[in-house]
Amino acid sequence: MITLPIRPALVVFDVNETLSDMAPIAGRFADVGADGHLAELWFAIVLRDGFALTAAGASPSFATLAEGGLRSMLAGVVSDRTLDAAVAHVMEGFAALKVHPDVPPGIESLASAGHRMVTLSNGSAAVAERLLAGCGLRGRFEACLSVDDAGAWKPARAAYLHAAAVCGVEPAQMLMVAVHPWDIDGATRAGLRTAWLSRAGRPYPEHFIAPDLRVGTVGELVERLADTPDAG
Amino acid sequence: MITLPIRPALVVFDVNETLSDMAPIAGRFADVGADGHLAELWFAIVLRDGFALTAAGASPSFATLAEGGLRSMLAGVVSDRTLDAAVAHVMEGFAALKVHPDVPPGIESLASAGHRMVTLSNGSAAVAERLLAGCGLRGRFEACLSVDDAGAWKPARAAYLHAAAVCGVEPAQMLMVAVHPWDIDGATRAGLRTAWLSRAGRPYPEHFIAPDLRVGTVGELVERLADTPDAG
Repeated sequence: MITLPIRPALVVFDVNETLSDMAPIAGRFADVGADGHLAELWFAIVLRDGFALTAAGASPSFATLAEGGLRSMLAGVVSDRTLDAAVAHVMEGFAALKVHPDVPPGIESLASAGHRMVTLSNGSAAVAERLLAGCGLRGRFEACLSVDDAGAWKPARAAYLHAAAVCGVEPAQMLMVAVHPWDIDGATRAGLRTAWLSRAGRPYPEHFIAPDLRVGTVGELVERLADTPDAG
Repeated sequence: MITLPIRPALVVFDVNETLSDMAPIAGRFADVGADGHLAELWFAIVLRDGFALTAAGASPSFATLAEGGLRSMLAGVVSDRTLDAAVAHVMEGFAALKVHPDVPPGIESLASAGHRMVTLSNGSAAVAERLLAGCGLRGRFEACLSVDDAGAWKPARAAYLHAAAVCGVEPAQMLMVAVHPWDIDGATRAGLRTAWLSRAGRPYPEHFIAPDLRVGTVGELVERLADTPDAG
């Protein structure tokens, strides 16, 4: 079984989709009269636009792009309420997401094994704080970090180096855990170790740098890290 | 009516969706047993992944991302042929796209008015060459440029500056014409003038820098440029 050469000094979790289960968003789209499949398109568009602005040198707010994207997609689709109300309904759903079922036991096990943990999101720190507080896990994380303070979205190198600087850890001592291949790719380019979390067990796209580890649940990650030697 | 302060020395056209009509792609998805709405998701994902890699410092091939994205989306969906054959069928459709109906008369009018024109695409130059040759317009364009030679995808600044350098024109003398707001935004940050082409007349998203001009067809652009004074 593949494992890491040394135990990571810091485990960094992505937030949206990695910790949070975004499935209920499709229901919010349906609530306002839009096709549920638009939820997936919406999230792809928010990331597309955020990455475009990052590539162009800007550092947008996730919430601004999320609302702007909804406004474009829902215009002309909503019939039972105003466009503003429809946008607010979906955004409220986004703020009320819960973690995936494997997250609480997996995070508890990582904490019991003595792992330092933080989150690093392209969204706001407040969304991550609320998500973790809601399931009683906030205390297991040293900090909820946002790229809002890094000046660039992941997967730009600066975003990962921001987390390294704030936590006083070298990139090579950090393990990035994410469901998104672009996050694995960017973290690797920034010098971090990586674990790709794929709950659906999908193949990893070949056009991104492959992860160091592949796991199906957070709990599986605990097992994989148990065998790593200390850096000491 | 808003116009530009001076006549542009070079008009730069984006290619995918700006010149080409991508509507037939949905039919290709349906041919292989997938929902037609996946076509829009696919293109959003290809751009999302390309922009992510650009933000991370890489310069991927559009075709590689397009095929990789299709492979992920169509896995488990296709039943009447192999996955390879399904991916090839959609990619062939992409290579066989035609220009929008307003493109030939609009480009002919711009050429008659003496405008220098090039294309600048995140895709390969070969795709643009084939598209324009197919409708007899290749001769109206000085060159078909690709970001493959720029080391970065649009909307990174380097992509636009590559076109400026190749054509020997200052960014401020160039007019970028595109249907995608992220392209308008990036071109503006790189110092170009911009014209947003919106055939559907949709509102421009507020989270991107607004265009200098807004037109519904290429022909409308000709009219708007007719009144600009020469730089002379």
